[in-house]
Amino acid sequence: MNKGGVFLLSGPSGSGKDTLLSALFAAHPELLFSISSITRPMREGEREGEKYHFITRERFENMIEQDELLEYNIFVDNYYGTPRKPVEEALQSGKDMIIEVDVNGAAQIRRKLPDAVSVFVMPPSLAELKRRLSSRGTETDELIQKRLQCALDEIARAVEYDYIVVNNEIATAAEQLYAIILSNHLKTDKQMELMNEVLSTC
Amino acid sequence: MNKGGVFLLSGPSGSGKDTLLSALFAAHPELLFSISSITRPMREGEREGEKYHFITRERFENMIEQDELLEYNIFVDNYYGTPRKPVEEALQSGKDMIIEVDVNGAAQIRRKLPDAVSVFVMPPSLAELKRRLSSRGTETDELIQKRLQCALDEIARAVEYDYIVVNNEIATAAEQLYAIILSNHLKTDKQMELMNEVLSTC
Repeated sequence: MNKGGVFLLSGPSGSGKDTLLSALFAAHPELLFSISSITRPMREGEREGEKYHFITRERFENMIEQDELLEYNIFVDNYYGTPRKPVEEALQSGKDMIIEVDVNGAAQIRRKLPDAVSVFVMPPSLAELKRRLSSRGTETDELIQKRLQCALDEIARAVEYDYIVVNNEIATAAEQLYAIILSNHLKTDKQMELMNEVLSTC
Repeated sequence: MNKGGVFLLSGPSGSGKDTLLSALFAAHPELLFSISSITRPMREGEREGEKYHFITRERFENMIEQDELLEYNIFVDNYYGTPRKPVEEALQSGKDMIIEVDVNGAAQIRRKLPDAVSVFVMPPSLAELKRRLSSRGTETDELIQKRLQCALDEIARAVEYDYIVVNNEIATAAEQLYAIILSNHLKTDKQMELMNEVLSTC
């Protein structure tokens, strides 16, 4: 068995990243999802260990000191980060791990794990992005405009990624995402161990 | 629509490359297959334009002079080569073209088309390879030994390839091969045109 892969997934709010990931994990339950550690309070509907580990500020700062994070960020006075250990364990056990992370976090992880494969999820069009950002509820035009600008700033950094998946139709995008994950295992440097196995059976 | 891709497929005799390609084309008839030009006489069961174009030695030498071949080789006094034009037309029209080629031919094409993605097909084990090379009929042990050595020499050059597919179970190997083809379209440099389209819809 060869080593697993790390897949960094980014995309602006409104790209449909979360729905895409749900479809991917439903079809391929063997894939692992990196659970972020965060210091903000739990919100309604959230559960410890599902998408986030809710930890104290002290614990988080201790993790930073001990180099236990692959990346971290402060957002509205709260820490968000990716614990290193589960990712390393996944790799060693030959499993693939998906890390949902913003463009800055992805850049941090790439420096630490140069073999990480990065995928940027694009909305199908700007018109659709605008529609999705507007339809969330009762936001003001100003807030929607601000979100759209944020999304455009992220999209401008899509060139830093290895792959771009346009999230037009969920099933198609999930299939594309899985093709990226599957093909990563077939890269020659990842297959050398398997090749030696084949050759040793003579 | 982005540009198509060129996929070089090699593998020793006994790797099951042909069966794998049949499965791939059956599942994905939109893929194109590069038809080689050769000067040897047609054999029973072969048809012009199916797997080969049967052309004269003079015509072949003229193609060499006019740089109309991506690669060519002489084998037992006959020329074998890959015409350049159909490959370039496929790329321009956004289609993917598979070129079945030996390790030397693949090396020649890589120099001319650095974006070509190359895949080496491995037999599942040496024991199985031996079995496949033996079961073809009434060959002598010496001939089988010679074929096995040929296969091993080719396998030693698998490291020159981008991907390695171990052809254990045809359906799995075909799925892996298709994942390589699909993911190639999603590479960021290939998606830039599509990205500009998305951004222009505002």
